[in-house]
Amino acid sequence: MLDQAPETEVSDAEAHIEELGRRARAASRVLAAASTEQKNEALKSAARALRAASEKIVAANEEDVAGVLAAGKSGAFVDRLKLDEARVEGVAAALDQIADLPDPVGRVLAKFERPNGLLIERVATPLGVIGMIYESRPNVGADAGALCVKSGNAVILRGGSESRRSTEVIVNALRAGLAEAGLPEDCIQAVGTTDRAAVAALLRATEFIDLVIPRGGRGLVSLVRDQARVPTLLHLDGNCHTYIHADADLQEAAEIVTNAKLRRTGICGATESLVVDRAVVSKFVPLLLDTIGQCEVRGDEEARAADDRIVPATEEDWNTEYLDSILSVKTVEGPDEAIAWVQKHSSGHTDAVLTEDAGVAERFLNAIDSAVVMHNASTQFSDGGEFGMGAEIGIATGKVHARGPVGLEQLTTFKYRVHGDGQTRP
Amino acid sequence: MLDQAPETEVSDAEAHIEELGRRARAASRVLAAASTEQKNEALKSAARALRAASEKIVAANEEDVAGVLAAGKSGAFVDRLKLDEARVEGVAAALDQIADLPDPVGRVLAKFERPNGLLIERVATPLGVIGMIYESRPNVGADAGALCVKSGNAVILRGGSESRRSTEVIVNALRAGLAEAGLPEDCIQAVGTTDRAAVAALLRATEFIDLVIPRGGRGLVSLVRDQARVPTLLHLDGNCHTYIHADADLQEAAEIVTNAKLRRTGICGATESLVVDRAVVSKFVPLLLDTIGQCEVRGDEEARAADDRIVPATEEDWNTEYLDSILSVKTVEGPDEAIAWVQKHSSGHTDAVLTEDAGVAERFLNAIDSAVVMHNASTQFSDGGEFGMGAEIGIATGKVHARGPVGLEQLTTFKYRVHGDGQTRP
Repeated sequence: MLDQAPETEVSDAEAHIEELGRRARAASRVLAAASTEQKNEALKSAARALRAASEKIVAANEEDVAGVLAAGKSGAFVDRLKLDEARVEGVAAALDQIADLPDPVGRVLAKFERPNGLLIERVATPLGVIGMIYESRPNVGADAGALCVKSGNAVILRGGSESRRSTEVIVNALRAGLAEAGLPEDCIQAVGTTDRAAVAALLRATEFIDLVIPRGGRGLVSLVRDQARVPTLLHLDGNCHTYIHADADLQEAAEIVTNAKLRRTGICGATESLVVDRAVVSKFVPLLLDTIGQCEVRGDEEARAADDRIVPATEEDWNTEYLDSILSVKTVEGPDEAIAWVQKHSSGHTDAVLTEDAGVAERFLNAIDSAVVMHNASTQFSDGGEFGMGAEIGIATGKVHARGPVGLEQLTTFKYRVHGDGQTRP
Repeated sequence: MLDQAPETEVSDAEAHIEELGRRARAASRVLAAASTEQKNEALKSAARALRAASEKIVAANEEDVAGVLAAGKSGAFVDRLKLDEARVEGVAAALDQIADLPDPVGRVLAKFERPNGLLIERVATPLGVIGMIYESRPNVGADAGALCVKSGNAVILRGGSESRRSTEVIVNALRAGLAEAGLPEDCIQAVGTTDRAAVAALLRATEFIDLVIPRGGRGLVSLVRDQARVPTLLHLDGNCHTYIHADADLQEAAEIVTNAKLRRTGICGATESLVVDRAVVSKFVPLLLDTIGQCEVRGDEEARAADDRIVPATEEDWNTEYLDSILSVKTVEGPDEAIAWVQKHSSGHTDAVLTEDAGVAERFLNAIDSAVVMHNASTQFSDGGEFGMGAEIGIATGKVHARGPVGLEQLTTFKYRVHGDGQTRP
């Protein structure tokens, strides 16, 4: 087919997505009616299948890794892609854990009787079919697949092209688990082409896809936001702030900030920027620098005057999610200026206030409209596991449908069930 | 400026939307912190201002009506646009009613303590800034403005160009109400140009707009779905079904169907299509035809064999939302075929089953994934008022964020408030 035109390829990708979509929709109807036990059995069988396929997964992954090394990719990229037997065991164990979580489907969210005798219930139901687009980590496909199955949703996975061999073996194991529990294998499908037109088609497939969740860098998330006609749950930047109020316990604050910044610098809940009251900046900053050790600290003039280990910050720093061992420090007059500053620069993920003054804490928690607002705690607690959700598919920074950690409950919608005894509307 | 190029106009519309967006964002922060009493006072003052401006509104509306008559528009279109003093009083009374509804902001949706002592609350908060795009009915702007203010959201209204004079006077009255209560007038703004580029700019303004709600015909809703980068709450078709099972009380069923079809034919919860069990079709159809009088009934062969007043249905009928005094009838073998038929043809708005068999009712309510599923009641009950929400801004047919009637609670999101006493994450 030497003369195959690009339009033909596009339409092939569209036809492929439509076929996956039809199968997913049909499978989702069976899955929505499945019992909790059946879904759990599918997850536990999938975990067994993953463990049994461990060698095969590692071998496929070695081919994937060889491919990206040959393409000259960097160490961190390769590390995210790499699976050894211990990591495969981790993926399988995560599936077992998801099987043990409560079933989010069928919860009665509200129940009321109307004066005319109609009994109305709002009941949690699966969303239907979820599209999951992710980049290099192949374990994301297994986690997402398991969370979708447990919440009664069929899922279409589109992993990065660099991990396609690993993803194929993992998806086959998940599908084997479904089949063993008597559920349709098509509850979990992977896009069978690395053609980017398939992503575009997935984002436009309003008839078949109820929600798309992208997990990856800013480029992927922007692409999804710009092209999607289907609803999306986006995870944008985590430019998180911690505000040190004049009445903070400064020694404790230095420890919280060190944890919030350095425990893991690569997660979206890491603090990227401090806002410090003028009244305590000269006392707090040296305390912090003594505690935070190897971290590069960039500050405004007042912060630098407090400690000469601080290097100058530029305008760009205030809007940067470093995801690295770098922290910026801004000095403010007090709560009003701190709140205005955070409102201007926060990306709406997580922001914290450290103070012993309960009134100031309340003002901050009320005024800052971020998914998570914290008082006297490390922003690194902004995580589905730490919130008791058991597992999360991502952290939503939008305000619609889900906000903050997206766990099983957030992968459901609801419907109204109305029981009457012959009522007609006057 | 004879040589003004289209690109300049586009950029003017974008600059206008950006200006409205900035003002709305700032106003939304003040409104989010307003007390329930202050918001209610704004609504009641707005109602008084509307009543005081009644003559002015009717006069502006007469100009709007003269414009569309001159453009040769039809009677129904003109009727939707028209405001007389009684209708203005209705709009004002709706504002008073919304003031009397419970405040949806600040509700504690969940509260739990983690083993490490972190106290986590999920608290209802406003969405922020809502864009409301609607067609000819000028009262929609007042209703939407009031619902947004009560739920703590700033709103940017974009009404139809044919109603712009009426809309301007109404919006001024609403803004006067806000000012009287000491709230920013910019909580309610109207787009100041009929340039369609402003709609496109609104749909792309992810920095300023948290949600767009279109209210109008299929053309408007499709345009919004295709162009929006901001989240949307869409109201697509209401192709609602009522299934008459063999064990239905047939006389009651004829009365329910007559109500579901004819009480008001123009609302989205009206039944458009019947699905009737073969075992009872010859008995039920004549009963129905005797009851439903002037309604045109289109059926398949079996339905026509049961009563010669029925005219033939075509394939198109099964997917048509008539919004008129027309009903289609499909004959099926029993619940399995009925469920498959409704799954295929329903638009996911509201579908009902009529039966005395509780098991069949449960099967139907579980299998049909529509926003509202009903047993032994008229589909015309699918309405925010009938559900006890007090007022609705529309009925969402998507599954994300809100589903079914969109009232005050559905115009909120939530945030997590976390209280610690110095916790760091291990």
